[in-house]
Amino acid sequence: MTRIIMHGCNGKMGQMITNLLEGDENAQIVAGVDPFDDGHNKYPVFPSIDSCVVKADVIIDFTSAKAVDKLLEFSAKNQVPVVVCTTGLSDEQIERINETSKQVAVLKSANMSLGINTLFKLLAQAAKVFNPAGFDVEIVEKHHNQKLDAPSGTALALADSIKDVLPDGYYYKYDRSQERRKRDPKEIGISAVRGGTIVGEHEVIFAGEDEVIEFKHTAYSKAVFAKGAIEAAKFLAGKPAGMYDMSDVIG
Amino acid sequence: MTRIIMHGCNGKMGQMITNLLEGDENAQIVAGVDPFDDGHNKYPVFPSIDSCVVKADVIIDFTSAKAVDKLLEFSAKNQVPVVVCTTGLSDEQIERINETSKQVAVLKSANMSLGINTLFKLLAQAAKVFNPAGFDVEIVEKHHNQKLDAPSGTALALADSIKDVLPDGYYYKYDRSQERRKRDPKEIGISAVRGGTIVGEHEVIFAGEDEVIEFKHTAYSKAVFAKGAIEAAKFLAGKPAGMYDMSDVIG
Amino acid sequence: MTRIIMHGCNGKMGQMITNLLEGDENAQIVAGVDPFDDGHNKYPVFPSIDSCVVKADVIIDFTSAKAVDKLLEFSAKNQVPVVVCTTGLSDEQIERINETSKQVAVLKSANMSLGINTLFKLLAQAAKVFNPAGFDVEIVEKHHNQKLDAPSGTALALADSIKDVLPDGYYYKYDRSQERRKRDPKEIGISAVRGGTIVGEHEVIFAGEDEVIEFKHTAYSKAVFAKGAIEAAKFLAGKPAGMYDMSDVIG
Amino acid sequence: MTRIIMHGCNGKMGQMITNLLEGDENAQIVAGVDPFDDGHNKYPVFPSIDSCVVKADVIIDFTSAKAVDKLLEFSAKNQVPVVVCTTGLSDEQIERINETSKQVAVLKSANMSLGINTLFKLLAQAAKVFNPAGFDVEIVEKHHNQKLDAPSGTALALADSIKDVLPDGYYYKYDRSQERRKRDPKEIGISAVRGGTIVGEHEVIFAGEDEVIEFKHTAYSKAVFAKGAIEAAKFLAGKPAGMYDMSDVIG
Repeated sequence: MTRIIMHGCNGKMGQMITNLLEGDENAQIVAGVDPFDDGHNKYPVFPSIDSCVVKADVIIDFTSAKAVDKLLEFSAKNQVPVVVCTTGLSDEQIERINETSKQVAVLKSANMSLGINTLFKLLAQAAKVFNPAGFDVEIVEKHHNQKLDAPSGTALALADSIKDVLPDGYYYKYDRSQERRKRDPKEIGISAVRGGTIVGEHEVIFAGEDEVIEFKHTAYSKAVFAKGAIEAAKFLAGKPAGMYDMSDVIG
Repeated sequence: MTRIIMHGCNGKMGQMITNLLEGDENAQIVAGVDPFDDGHNKYPVFPSIDSCVVKADVIIDFTSAKAVDKLLEFSAKNQVPVVVCTTGLSDEQIERINETSKQVAVLKSANMSLGINTLFKLLAQAAKVFNPAGFDVEIVEKHHNQKLDAPSGTALALADSIKDVLPDGYYYKYDRSQERRKRDPKEIGISAVRGGTIVGEHEVIFAGEDEVIEFKHTAYSKAVFAKGAIEAAKFLAGKPAGMYDMSDVIG
Repeated sequence: MTRIIMHGCNGKMGQMITNLLEGDENAQIVAGVDPFDDGHNKYPVFPSIDSCVVKADVIIDFTSAKAVDKLLEFSAKNQVPVVVCTTGLSDEQIERINETSKQVAVLKSANMSLGINTLFKLLAQAAKVFNPAGFDVEIVEKHHNQKLDAPSGTALALADSIKDVLPDGYYYKYDRSQERRKRDPKEIGISAVRGGTIVGEHEVIFAGEDEVIEFKHTAYSKAVFAKGAIEAAKFLAGKPAGMYDMSDVIG
Repeated sequence: MTRIIMHGCNGKMGQMITNLLEGDENAQIVAGVDPFDDGHNKYPVFPSIDSCVVKADVIIDFTSAKAVDKLLEFSAKNQVPVVVCTTGLSDEQIERINETSKQVAVLKSANMSLGINTLFKLLAQAAKVFNPAGFDVEIVEKHHNQKLDAPSGTALALADSIKDVLPDGYYYKYDRSQERRKRDPKEIGISAVRGGTIVGEHEVIFAGEDEVIEFKHTAYSKAVFAKGAIEAAKFLAGKPAGMYDMSDVIG
């Protein structure tokens, strides 16, 4: 039985993971961390990670960027592996994560879903075939109207998985309305659509002469990300120090 | 039999219309205008519109913005109605078109296809239902990598057909990558994708709470626009002075 | 304040409506009906509609076909308008609903969402333009792998909204794998895709020469249908006897 | 310079290949075969393959099933490799192709486009990840209203590329309208949409719990298949006896 500390247990994702783990035979939450708590969870909740005194095998983190620094310290000091699902981290924080991973197992992914993480691999292969044949790459992502950042971290990660296998010189293009010229073959266009309550849709387009290939991922609920985080936690418990991502979990 | 002058007869669209009209029982090209000509057309070709001495019932224009001024003069002076399919006109030129239409029948449309022109009408109705219910509007258009302007004139015309029926204050948003904030409900996002030889794809999205409605038009070849221009020419021949558009042709 | 009886209050949809109405200022559930009850709802629950003794302005029904007959009797006898959301009714039951609507207001719709009901209207208009121009109509619907019927009632209702405005002789075609021949222009193809937990996706395609127009509706959660039912109930309370559908609610 | 015999030179595909090869520096058509000929091609045309006396390095075949038998004989006897693009072959003919490939190089593919042939590989990989995670597979293909067979050979080949890597027992399902039951997890649904002049669209769907991954290929003109056939011919010239397909060409 994998013992989990849920960091950010009273947020939307924390509660979703709490519900999904009820009745799970292989993992359970043994403690939560959240500054706001009304005692409704079945596990003890601590106001901050450093006040948490419960032994665990792994931490799942769905908080905000500012809570991550203390978390990394705790994880390294107590040798508890950590799954970092919080996004919008600064470059310094990402550097700190890399440092921490020398002392304890850390898993970080731009997107926790099986579908997106499988696409990372397939897109790299597709790009190796389509790029030499002259195909252009474009990405369109769609999210709900409350999302702050654009394009999404997942769209950028999908673009990176392609750019990494292309020759040098490719770059991202976010806006074409301010100029009047043909598409530069080195562009990778990334468009962000926002509306309603769309959970998350990512479409990667390879457009060639008279044929187009599209890879599309649609998330219908955030449960996809919660489930991915649980899989990741089960995987990470007991692993040696190092930097992991979801592609390790998929295997 | 409608007699047509094909203005820009040796361009891609001019040749496509030439081919489509071969064997047409209700219309024929009686003269072409093009500075470049090798004599391969079955009709006489004049280097400029003012040198054209053939009588006709209507002109179809697929040239470039700079050729349009002389054309309008000719059309008014000789009382030959004109279908203007050239895009990228300046505000002054559009003003001149409006002036000309007081003397002779002029038809101008952002897009000559039946599908797009039907969407103009349906989108206005859709917007009247979905806007009060809190739906957001977004547009994504896709075109080939040689297209100069972005977003496409058709995407803007689709957006206009919606904005015209919304309360005041809505505006177009072309780029979200430079800021970090929630979507303004008054935004209408317009994204331009460019790649390969995509002829033209327009998708209008109404995104509400837990449901999304999409209207999508795909053109598979420019023949769609050529056919629309021919329909428009047949319609316009013999019409009194005035400004017309494709919605008059659809009826 | 509209007083609602929730018929089938402990089913998935009944509970969703219960949650959505918590805190609603214009409507509230005053009683539920369900053979299975553990007392967790805030309103009284009766095992069958005829044992319900609470006064109400309208009934929302999300049960199964066999519970509908008694419901119609109750509704007529007590003069309480009823919103019938249960699907899979027999022809006889639909006949009985029509009979009942002579005595009390009844609202029935193949699909409770604003989007689908708006499409009914727009598709009829689209068909009137595209059919004479030689466009073919096809429908593809996608639902989760637990759905029993195929094609969905909504797909059939969308098809009906088109067929109703076409000339005589059009018919639905569900399978093309058993024969080898060109498409009959009078066919309206309807395809049913099943997989995962897809809530409901409907795509109507008008395919012409070199252009295709698609109308697509995606439901992201069943809350869409719950909300539609609540809107319908608020609308129906106080209405005179008669047969209503969601297009009356949309106005 | 690869010397090509174009088998079926006056058909649509034969003429497209003829045009594409004009000015090609690495390949040229040295003879055509077609029962109907008006002498407009720049190369000699023979009424049947066995009357063709011109030396060549490879044959491209775009004819009909009944012309293929003689072709295989000729190819083996004269040791000229052959690219078979004709579809709708009988099981016996496919057997004969396999026999012929013991004597001479033969390349046969359900679809000649780079995009589709790349998808064959990627789909097999995707299926290996998504199937154990409980995802359902469904395919939707769309073609013009003149197509005789349904589903398309390409759709079946895409399905095969997935079924080949799944555990035993999966089967294709073409129609769900005649029964009332939940989806069998072993089904692979294949739907065929027909309309207008759609060149060819194939969509493969992996639908899981709350997420869907789609792979979509759109052909905008038959030039895609013509180009693929030319690439295949250049590749096959000079190859030893054996059975090849487009995946060998892609490399």
